[in-house]
Amino acid sequence: MTKARFSGVLAPVITPFDNNLMPDKDIYVRHCHWLTEQQVGLAVFGTNSEANSLSLEEKSTLLAALIEGGIDPMRLMPGTGSCALPDAIQLTRFAVESGCAGVLMLPPFYYKGVSDDGLYQFYSEVIQRIADPALQIYLYHIPQVTQIPLSIDLIDRLVKAYPDNIAGVKDSSGDWSNTQAMLDRQWPDFRVFCGSESFLLQNMRAGGAGCISATANVNPAAIYSLYANWQESTADEKQAELNTIRDIFQSRPMIPALKSATALCARIPDWHRVRPPLMQLNQDMLKELETALDAAHFNMPGLAD
Amino acid sequence: MTKARFSGVLAPVITPFDNNLMPDKDIYVRHCHWLTEQQVGLAVFGTNSEANSLSLEEKSTLLAALIEGGIDPMRLMPGTGSCALPDAIQLTRFAVESGCAGVLMLPPFYYKGVSDDGLYQFYSEVIQRIADPALQIYLYHIPQVTQIPLSIDLIDRLVKAYPDNIAGVKDSSGDWSNTQAMLDRQWPDFRVFCGSESFLLQNMRAGGAGCISATANVNPAAIYSLYANWQESTADEKQAELNTIRDIFQSRPMIPALKSATALCARIPDWHRVRPPLMQLNQDMLKELETALDAAHFNMPGLAD
Repeated sequence: MTKARFSGVLAPVITPFDNNLMPDKDIYVRHCHWLTEQQVGLAVFGTNSEANSLSLEEKSTLLAALIEGGIDPMRLMPGTGSCALPDAIQLTRFAVESGCAGVLMLPPFYYKGVSDDGLYQFYSEVIQRIADPALQIYLYHIPQVTQIPLSIDLIDRLVKAYPDNIAGVKDSSGDWSNTQAMLDRQWPDFRVFCGSESFLLQNMRAGGAGCISATANVNPAAIYSLYANWQESTADEKQAELNTIRDIFQSRPMIPALKSATALCARIPDWHRVRPPLMQLNQDMLKELETALDAAHFNMPGLAD
Repeated sequence: MTKARFSGVLAPVITPFDNNLMPDKDIYVRHCHWLTEQQVGLAVFGTNSEANSLSLEEKSTLLAALIEGGIDPMRLMPGTGSCALPDAIQLTRFAVESGCAGVLMLPPFYYKGVSDDGLYQFYSEVIQRIADPALQIYLYHIPQVTQIPLSIDLIDRLVKAYPDNIAGVKDSSGDWSNTQAMLDRQWPDFRVFCGSESFLLQNMRAGGAGCISATANVNPAAIYSLYANWQESTADEKQAELNTIRDIFQSRPMIPALKSATALCARIPDWHRVRPPLMQLNQDMLKELETALDAAHFNMPGLAD
């Protein structure tokens, strides 16, 4: 008997840094509680979390802090992929032992032009060494960043070899035809998430499981509302509203813009910070963001309480 | 007073794995001694070392084993770059404290399209947090793998801001015009290494410092001999001979081919292994490699003793 699998909306949770550029646990735990109150799950350690800018130890410490801080691990889908097999195994094992409902796993992304056989071997080693049916892997396809696509054939091989462990995929390619091709395969109980709420309605209508989207950090309730009501007559209108807010962030450096919007709404200046090689918004960009958010009557209710 | 800087030939040392895919310290230390006896320096934890397939702890353990095993740290230029700033700082600090003559530092390579400002900030944080004139950074430009080029302008800013710490560059772009552009800047005591011995003679004639080349793992003495005798009349002939051997490896999956040639010459089958996502040569490819090496009268004298 495998674990129940995810559906719904998840946020790749942004990570707050203190003035020494170290993760701030208290702000983090508080923010994650706010997100779960908005009905979204927590895909901590995703691309928008600056996960690859964090050490393994920092990720383990933050994950432990969330659970100690009262976050239900069944709401957690931490990113545990790594270029290095032992790192991927260590963090994945910790997530499983911590009771996380699933993990979101990048392929190793240093070498380019690697074969499907090599990627299959990488995921196989993780699965076989952890050897636990509680391990629920959501594959993370984001080729524009990793340059390592997860082909439909590779996913098919993994699903067939490890049906109890391969639970789904996050398709961040932005290429709907790829998402549709995954859905078309109808792998049993395989959960297809789109990587942007722009595709949420389309994904739900095609049999998808929901979305894991950067902007779920700042607009969680509205995105969840479309997910929960996608069969209502208001769905297309809701989708259009989501797209308006998304455009504000997508037309800017996404991660710094998400963090600055959060800083403004939470009234916590630490949120402006990013780790290099990312750069926080400069004063002009910040002003323009504020103006755009005001014009859209954007807010994050309850965040500053 | 800063440390003496590198010149010469360095090997990005291949990493042996046991049958559980864990690094084999004994084989590693022995191999590094063989390489230094061939007069090449040790750029451990490079691309051809599968460094990004190793955990931070594995790299620290291997580096400590080399020094405990009698390798002179002044022959060591470990790769210490990482996507995560704390990892880059931790390994770099360990290398400096261990007395390594230099470090070879990749830029953070997860995010794509990052700015020169962000990369400058990343290297600055490492330098300022370590705050030790013994830190000698060789920048690692390998855009076809990282997708993160180190521009001439970025290098210029770093050299001018940190003249005591920025010691040189390894240009693995394969684009001679880029190497030439770096040499043309004539930064004081800045060491320009080409990333392949195919450019060694050209680099030496243009004022470069040497090469850091994958094939220095298997053909170290001959590459060193060209370096040491580049002003002799035999230099062009030596360069042509080097190119012949290099072509054998370059026309195959490079890392598995280097490891298999080493396995054959050292009579240590463990050397065939790579960590996923790389794949070791299959039987047909191995046979073809053996045939090509035999035809070129290739050997690695002293390795099997």
